[in-house]
Amino acid sequence: MWYSVSFTTRCERGQIVEVCWSERYARRTHRMAGSAIRELLKITEKPGFISFAGGLPAPELFPVEQVAAVGQRILTEAGRVALQYSATEGYRPLRECIAQRLRTDGVAAGIDHVLITTGSQQGLDLVGKILVDPGDVVVVESPTYLAALQAWNAYEAKFVGVASDECGMDVGGLERVVEREPKMIYCQPNFQNPSGVTLARERRVRLLEFSYHHGIPVVEDDPYHELRFEGDDLPGLMALEASRGTQEEQYDGNIISLGTFSKVLAPGLRVGWVIAAPTVIAQLTLAKQGTDLHTSTFDQMIAYELLDSGFLEGHKQSIVQTYRERRDAMLDALADCFPHDARWTRPEGGMFLWVELPESIDTGDLLLRAMEQQVAFVPGAAFHVDGTGHNTMRLNFSNSTPERIRDGISRLARELHRMA
Amino acid sequence: MWYSVSFTTRCERGQIVEVCWSERYARRTHRMAGSAIRELLKITEKPGFISFAGGLPAPELFPVEQVAAVGQRILTEAGRVALQYSATEGYRPLRECIAQRLRTDGVAAGIDHVLITTGSQQGLDLVGKILVDPGDVVVVESPTYLAALQAWNAYEAKFVGVASDECGMDVGGLERVVEREPKMIYCQPNFQNPSGVTLARERRVRLLEFSYHHGIPVVEDDPYHELRFEGDDLPGLMALEASRGTQEEQYDGNIISLGTFSKVLAPGLRVGWVIAAPTVIAQLTLAKQGTDLHTSTFDQMIAYELLDSGFLEGHKQSIVQTYRERRDAMLDALADCFPHDARWTRPEGGMFLWVELPESIDTGDLLLRAMEQQVAFVPGAAFHVDGTGHNTMRLNFSNSTPERIRDGISRLARELHRMA
Repeated sequence: MWYSVSFTTRCERGQIVEVCWSERYARRTHRMAGSAIRELLKITEKPGFISFAGGLPAPELFPVEQVAAVGQRILTEAGRVALQYSATEGYRPLRECIAQRLRTDGVAAGIDHVLITTGSQQGLDLVGKILVDPGDVVVVESPTYLAALQAWNAYEAKFVGVASDECGMDVGGLERVVEREPKMIYCQPNFQNPSGVTLARERRVRLLEFSYHHGIPVVEDDPYHELRFEGDDLPGLMALEASRGTQEEQYDGNIISLGTFSKVLAPGLRVGWVIAAPTVIAQLTLAKQGTDLHTSTFDQMIAYELLDSGFLEGHKQSIVQTYRERRDAMLDALADCFPHDARWTRPEGGMFLWVELPESIDTGDLLLRAMEQQVAFVPGAAFHVDGTGHNTMRLNFSNSTPERIRDGISRLARELHRMA
Repeated sequence: MWYSVSFTTRCERGQIVEVCWSERYARRTHRMAGSAIRELLKITEKPGFISFAGGLPAPELFPVEQVAAVGQRILTEAGRVALQYSATEGYRPLRECIAQRLRTDGVAAGIDHVLITTGSQQGLDLVGKILVDPGDVVVVESPTYLAALQAWNAYEAKFVGVASDECGMDVGGLERVVEREPKMIYCQPNFQNPSGVTLARERRVRLLEFSYHHGIPVVEDDPYHELRFEGDDLPGLMALEASRGTQEEQYDGNIISLGTFSKVLAPGLRVGWVIAAPTVIAQLTLAKQGTDLHTSTFDQMIAYELLDSGFLEGHKQSIVQTYRERRDAMLDALADCFPHDARWTRPEGGMFLWVELPESIDTGDLLLRAMEQQVAFVPGAAFHVDGTGHNTMRLNFSNSTPERIRDGISRLARELHRMA
C-alpha cells in the first residue's frame, strides 16, 4: 500500500492505528492533485480581482424572476410531486421534451433514449462507471476539458490526446491511436472548453465513420452549442448520422451525447442529461441509482417548465448577445495589447478563448505575476494529457464586463511585456 | 470478457461490431440485477394499490407552503447566488449549521467536518469511491439497507453480514469477522431500514471500542434519528465518543456519519451530508468534484433557511405524530390478523417494520399472491447478503393512512392463511 493517510489516531488503549484509503483512489487523487481550477477560483472570488479563470455564466443574466414564478406555480399545483422521491431516469415530461428536440433533428428517439443527470458532470462520471476499466484508453482532444479527466481518473482511465487545430480535433490523428484499442473517444464539438474551437462538419462525418468502422463509442459533450454568436449551427453527431439515412426504427448507435441546462438556464440547479441508445441508458440508469437515486425533482420541474414554455429559446438570445460583446471586447483587447507573436482562437460561441504565447513564456510563471496584479486565468498545461501546453492559457469571457475585460487583458499584457 | 452488450450494430460498410461494457461494471450490474425495490415501486404506483413496499415519506406532510415562501425569498434576495455554481463542499451557512448541531452534542466540529451531498445516497457512493478497492470486505448488518449494497457493489465490495436482533447489530459477532480484515463497518443505528430496530446504547459503546481497537472506520448512516416516536434519544457514535472525554481539539476519529433532509423536509430536493474527520472530508470532496461538481445551490439554500429558522424542529413533531399513528395501526392490524407464529419488530421510530414468518413461508411467493390482491411489500431476502431471509419481509408504514394499513394488512393475512 504505497499511500495511506491516518485518520485514526487514538483509541482506548493508546494504540496509534492507521486506516488506509482505497489504493485505487489514492492513485487517482494523486493524479488529480491540485484540482487547479477550483482551488484557484477560491482566491479569485475576492472583490477587485478580475478573473478569466473560472467557467461561470454571467449571473446578471440568470432568469431569476422566471425561476421564481415557475417554482411558485410548481409548488402550488404539484408540491407533493416536486418534493417527493422520483424516478432515477428523470422527470418524464422533461425527458419527453428532450427526445422531442432530438426528433426535430431527425433522430429517431423517445424517452428511453434520455437520462436526466445531476449536471452533465454526472454524465461524465456515469459514463466512466459503466465503460472504463482500470487502464482503459480514452482518446481526448488536446487540449481537453479538465473535469472529464477528473471524472475518469476515478476509474483509472489512461488518456491519449489527439491534437486539435482551428477546425477542432484532428480526426485523421485517430488512426494513429487505434492500435491502443481505445474504449471511447471524448469530444466537445462546439466552442470547446478550453480552446473555443468548433469541430468542422467534414470532421464530424469522419469521426462518425471512424467510430463505426472501429466500433468505438464517441462521448459527445455539448454544453455550449446553444451559445452560438455567428455562423451556422452544425449538426450534432446523432443528427448527422440521421441525415445519412442509415438509421433503424429507433436510435441504436455509437454516440453518447451529454447536454446541460447550466449555460442557458442556471448551473446552480444541476440539471443535465445524457442521450444514447436505450441499452446504454439502461446501464447508466442502474449506475445512477446507486450514485444519487435521482436528480432534484423540483429543479427538474423548473427546467422543464422553462424549456417547454419556450422561454429558454428566447432567453438564450440575450445570453448570446452579451457573450458576443464580451468575446469581441476580449478579441479587441488582445489585438491591441498582446505581443505580436501571441496567437489566439476566435470562438464562434461559448465562453472561452485560448491563447498560445511564444515558447519562451511559461503561463504558470505568468499566472504568479498576474495574480499580483489581481488578474487570473488558467494555465494551459492542465488541459493537456501529455505534459505540453506550458505556453498556453484559457481565458473566460462570459463572467466579466467589457470594461473589466479590457482592464484585465491590459494588465496581463503588461506582465507579458515585462517577461519578454 | 465474459459479458458484453452490443450497442453498435451497423456501420457504413455493413460490419456488425460490438462495444463492451466495463468488465468490472458488468460484474457489478450482474450482482445488482433486479434492483428489486425500485422496479416494484413502478408497478405499485397504480391507484388502488396499497403499497408497503416503498420507502416514501408521507407527501401530505411536505411543508409545501414554507418551501415556496423561502424559495421565493432566496430568489428575491440572492437569486444570482442561488442559481450559480457553488463550492463542492456545500453551502457554507448550511455546513456551519450542521457543525453547530454537532457541537451542541459535544463533538468538536467545524465546517471542515461537513460535506453536503446530493442526498445521503451520494454519501454512500463517495465513501465507496474513496475507501473500497475490489474485493475489500465491508461488514453490514443482516438484514441491511439495500441501496448501500447497490452503491458499494459498484466498487466491488465483498459483504459480510453480522446478525442483528431487537437491540440492533450483534456487536459481539464483529470479533468473528476481524480476520477478514474489513475495510469498514456499515450501520444504521436508529430505526434501521429494513428492520426498524435501534442499536442499544451499550452496543454503541462496544462498536466504538471495536472500531478503535482494530482501526476500522464505521459508516454511521442515520437518516431516521429525528423520527423518534417514543423513548429517549440515544447518542450518535461521535457524540458518544465525545462524552467519553477522549477527544482532541477537533474531531479526528473513526466515524463517518451520514445524514439527510429527506425525512424531515423533502427527499425530492436531494440534500444530505457527511460528517467526518477533516482529512476524510477532503478526500470525499475531491471525489464529489468529479462526480457532480456540487449539490443544487438553490435546494441547499432552501434546506438551510428551514433548518436555521427552527421551522424543521417544529415540523418534525407533526411527522412524528402521524408516523406514530401509522405504526400503531400497523402493529394493531398485525396483532389482529397475522398468524400466531409470525413475529415482528416494534420500531420506536422511523418508517419500517420487519416481519418474520414461519420457515415454511417464502415471502417471494407471498408477494406474487399479494400483488394479485393489490398489496405490495418487499421480500426480506434482498436485504441479506448471505441468501437467508426467505421468510421475512419489510413493511413501510409512513406512506399509507391507518385505514389503508388495516385494509392492506388484512389482505396480506388472508393470503398467508391460504398458504398455511
